[in-house]
Parts: sequence; structure tokens; C-alpha cells
Amino acid sequence: MEQNLPNTVALLARTPAVLDALLRDLPEAWTMRNEGAGTWSAFDVVGHLNHGERTDWLPRARVILEFGATRDFDPFDRWGQERESAGKSLGQLLDEFARLRAEGLAELRAMNLQPEDLERRGRHPALGVVTLSQLLATWATHDLTHLHQISRVLAHQYDAAVGPWHAYLGVLNCGGHSAP
Amino acid sequence: MEQNLPNTVALLARTPAVLDALLRDLPEAWTMRNEGAGTWSAFDVVGHLNHGERTDWLPRARVILEFGATRDFDPFDRWGQERESAGKSLGQLLDEFARLRAEGLAELRAMNLQPEDLERRGRHPALGVVTLSQLLATWATHDLTHLHQISRVLAHQYDAAVGPWHAYLGVLNCGGHSAP
Repeated sequence: MEQNLPNTVALLARTPAVLDALLRDLPEAWTMRNEGAGTWSAFDVVGHLNHGERTDWLPRARVILEFGATRDFDPFDRWGQERESAGKSLGQLLDEFARLRAEGLAELRAMNLQPEDLERRGRHPALGVVTLSQLLATWATHDLTHLHQISRVLAHQYDAAVGPWHAYLGVLNCGGHSAP
Repeated sequence: MEQNLPNTVALLARTPAVLDALLRDLPEAWTMRNEGAGTWSAFDVVGHLNHGERTDWLPRARVILEFGATRDFDPFDRWGQERESAGKSLGQLLDEFARLRAEGLAELRAMNLQPEDLERRGRHPALGVVTLSQLLATWATHDLTHLHQISRVLAHQYDAAVGPWHAYLGVLNCGGHSAP
């Protein structure tokens, strides 16, 4: 289907509660382990989502509305959460995510975007010309890619524990395609 | 890590709230669409989880405790939810999942399993000898495989809407490995 603003917002609004239900107070044996060197734990992923709220999605929407395709988006730092998350608990990161997302959605509503706005163009430093509609669809799908990743990172911790059932569990046979 | 009963239960106990936060009242444009012929929507997956609560996990644990490896588990019907879910709303299926899971975890606690019980063996009709510990690890990992699937099925609906960002979103490049 095409990007549909109410449908996009419906997903975006749910993600903080989804991650809260899954991760808050879950034993650290799940939340602080990753898939090996250079990969992310669930804790790291929540930090990455927070970094995206601060520097990626709405900042880029503002660039599109203000400058169109005359100016490249600022590049996104895929390891930017390392500094921001240092010394915080997962509970703090989840609180932060809920707050940042609520603020972001309030700002999005205040933009009062019309269908013609959604066709406005911006320029991604690597991907070239993109539309505001594609940016918003990607914001929601990016949540899903990281929910997909978190489910895989958690499952990985039981990779050996499931024994012969390994063959039946798709999540254990996922090629790490959304790794960091 | 090895299967650890409190860690397993911590995950199992969270899944109903995770799916509730993600799916309840989400527009049907997300929840009722699948990935093409022969694949499942999020609605279908919740029905499948309910069918598993009824016929797979604890029934098999009971077979292990009662019969050991002298009797095959009953085969699991991977399309068993079709009849059970017919005519129900997604909200009803989510309510059912929360209730079945809570009852299942209460029964699991009542079993008061000791470390030696976890090593008891059963016989899977296709996989051969398995342990109770592996069955419990698989129960939790099966939740994660379907969370992984649901995130992929939802994301699939925006496969075209994200435009050039497609290449960056791992969930859109997942080979459907946990499809039904």
C-alpha cells in the first residue's frame, strides 16, 4: 500500500509501548547481550532509536519543508547512541524513547501536512532524491526493522538451548540482515 | 546461554502485552494483510499462537512428565488456527492469548520443575528425542520467531512506500524464513 499518514502514525505511536512491554525489567541476560563482536544488544537498539528521533526523522522532514532538494540531509551517525546511552539504564532509555516519540508525533501533527506536502522532495546524501512521504514510511518501517532485529538478538541467546528445534525456528536462521 | 526457567518465563510472560501494544486497534490495513498467497497476516499469527497454547507447549510438557520418550508427541497442526479464529476479532484473539498464556504459566509454576525434571526426555514425531528444557526454550523462542514474522509482515505493506530506503531496511530483505 501507499504511505498513509494516519496508518504511519498509528504504528509510530505504538512502538514505545511495544518495546516497554518487551524489554522493561527483562533480565539483563536477554537485554544486554548481542550477536557477537560489532553487533547490537536490545539496549543498543533502543539507544539507536533515540538517536534517530533526535537527529534523523523530524530533522530531515524539516530540511525537506525548508530547503527541498537543494540541500543534502545531514548524514546519520549509526553509532551515535554510544555516547548518548553511556551510563544510562535501559529503563531510562525506554522513558526517553517514549518522550522523544511523543514530542515528535506532536510536532508532526502541528506540521498539518497536506497531500501535496507529502510529495515534496529532499536529497539523501547517499540515496539521492526522496520524498517526504517516503521519509515518513521509512520512519515507521525503521521501527519494524529494529523490532525484527531485537526479536532476533533475543532469540540468538537461546540458539543452543532449543536443541533440535533449531531447524524450525526461522528467527534463528535469519542472516543478520538488519544487524547494526 | 542455557535454558534458564526464570529467564524463559520472563519472556513468555511479556509476549501478550507486546502483541497487545503493537496490534490492538491498529488499522486493518496492517493487521489483516499478509505477504501473499499461503502466508499469514498478523491476525493469523495470533491465532496460531493461541492454537500452540492449547495443543503444543504444555500438552507436550505433560507428555514428557507422564510418558517420557516412550510416546511420540501429537503432531502440531500448523493451520489449526483457521477454524479456531473464524469469526473472531483480533481483539478477541489477543484477549484469548493473554488468558491462555496466563493459565499456562500458572500451570508451569504448579509443576514446580526441578533441574532433574528439565533433563527429562520426550519424543518429537519428526525431530526425535528432545528434553523438557529444550521444549521450554523453544516455547519462548517460538514467541520471538513470530514477533520477528509479524514485524516483517507489517513492514512488507510499506515495501514500495519507502522508495530508495528499501536497501537500508533489513526487515524488507528478510527471506521469509519464518513464513508459515
